[in-house]
Amino acid sequence: MFDAGRSPAPLMSNPRADRVKEAAKLAGRSARLKTGRFLAEGPQAVREALVAHRNAAGLGRPGVVLEVFATAACLERLPELAELSQGLPLRLATDEVLAAMADTVSPQGIIAVCRIESPALSDVLALRPKLLAVLCEVRDPGNAGTILRAADSAGADAVILTASSVDIHNPKAVRSTAGSLFHLPVVSGVDFAELAGALQDAGITILAADGYGDQNLDELQDASALRRLAPGPAAGNASGPRLENPTAWLFGNEAQGLSQAELDASDNRVAVPVYGQAESLNVGTAATVCLYASARAQNR
Amino acid sequence: MFDAGRSPAPLMSNPRADRVKEAAKLAGRSARLKTGRFLAEGPQAVREALVAHRNAAGLGRPGVVLEVFATAACLERLPELAELSQGLPLRLATDEVLAAMADTVSPQGIIAVCRIESPALSDVLALRPKLLAVLCEVRDPGNAGTILRAADSAGADAVILTASSVDIHNPKAVRSTAGSLFHLPVVSGVDFAELAGALQDAGITILAADGYGDQNLDELQDASALRRLAPGPAAGNASGPRLENPTAWLFGNEAQGLSQAELDASDNRVAVPVYGQAESLNVGTAATVCLYASARAQNR
Repeated sequence: MFDAGRSPAPLMSNPRADRVKEAAKLAGRSARLKTGRFLAEGPQAVREALVAHRNAAGLGRPGVVLEVFATAACLERLPELAELSQGLPLRLATDEVLAAMADTVSPQGIIAVCRIESPALSDVLALRPKLLAVLCEVRDPGNAGTILRAADSAGADAVILTASSVDIHNPKAVRSTAGSLFHLPVVSGVDFAELAGALQDAGITILAADGYGDQNLDELQDASALRRLAPGPAAGNASGPRLENPTAWLFGNEAQGLSQAELDASDNRVAVPVYGQAESLNVGTAATVCLYASARAQNR
Repeated sequence: MFDAGRSPAPLMSNPRADRVKEAAKLAGRSARLKTGRFLAEGPQAVREALVAHRNAAGLGRPGVVLEVFATAACLERLPELAELSQGLPLRLATDEVLAAMADTVSPQGIIAVCRIESPALSDVLALRPKLLAVLCEVRDPGNAGTILRAADSAGADAVILTASSVDIHNPKAVRSTAGSLFHLPVVSGVDFAELAGALQDAGITILAADGYGDQNLDELQDASALRRLAPGPAAGNASGPRLENPTAWLFGNEAQGLSQAELDASDNRVAVPVYGQAESLNVGTAATVCLYASARAQNR
């Protein structure tokens, strides 16, 4: 049961209070940029934020959560969230206050104000990543969140967003990640030319996910499976990039795909084959298939 | 250029006209059930509907499109759509009229009233399908549409929805299919027990996509790749279902997953491995990975 004694602050019940308005402003990009904060809404996102916070604290690093707002009913129902919040400012609030703060229709009783973490590209590359997802001008927050979640599922080491991509801390994007935002480093606002140079220097193969690519993902998977499962002279003959090598996948804009500069900077252009009559794949779907192909080839 | 002489009917300019209201009602399930009609909105969906209509007509079968409403500007911009509409009632309308009909914020100048096609399960099975996607209580229209689009991309032979799944002719679901709704047969409102029996009788393996499944999709893919690429005694030893066999994948409810009855009726429960910290996969993502694994094993 939630121990109300932990929170001597009075119940927040005024949806028009200044701190409520300030939190609500974090739905907008300018307030996020100004404050370096964003909101995680609902039990799933907040739980993942709190677990990431605790893990960071265990390593002596600053945690991601600054403050938690919750209803007493939510903490009664999910005592794990009260427990994970220990040591953090935890404010009891009414449903009306949470609704006024949140972008979601119903934040289900809990919201965390989080710190935007901005790891440097060089720090991520210093960890010798084997699998990276790069979002190049992906504009839809739902797509960006879906790709980040797929990258997490596939065990990618980090997600990188170029400067003109959607803000991953947009409430809809955060929601679409289903907590995965707190699982792996996300580098934002990267200049593409700089990124391409850094990836080359790090010896990471750049693969463009491109419906018109001359390499067929299924053929690359077959070649990789042969090398892995039935090594021998025949297996070594296949041309094309090796999915088992350290790889950065580029995923492009929903309407235009990857730009010429992005394609030019890639080592190869790889198409996910379309077997039916579909004109193309949704970028989230294509990213999932590409990242899982690499994960499998790399025996993650 | 669009030949206005083809359409002697006057320009529809009254957004409150009865036929506008009737079309708008098709956003609701009851009107769709009553009339057997639904709306395709926007150039991409209407184009795919018109192509499907023409293909059906070429085979002497009834087409899917009943009536097209478009702005003159849209037909000027996309003359292909006017051409594809030949022989169909094509009404010129204002943007306001189209906006009043449509569920989308902006139908981009064109809407088609379409006939709900209801192929029988027995007709689909008579074509000896090799790959089927079955939606069991999938409730979110966006997810249902995404899975249908992924099924189309992977070359599935049909999509089947059990009785308690979302209506695939819901405007949001239609939109999420990005035209794929018109590419493959969709059987709706199927009783699950009946379906399971029919699939068994047809010799189709039923695989449950289940995060807790005891079979690992990547191991099944490896075994299948070995049989396909390096056949020999070793390749024949793998246990577990063979992805190259005719397969129906079951995808479950977003929150609860597959029911016990659905799991019990499956030949195997297959998990898409999660390599990172993600708790689970979105059902659309999981479906994409599963369907592509089968497509690849079946050499589609």
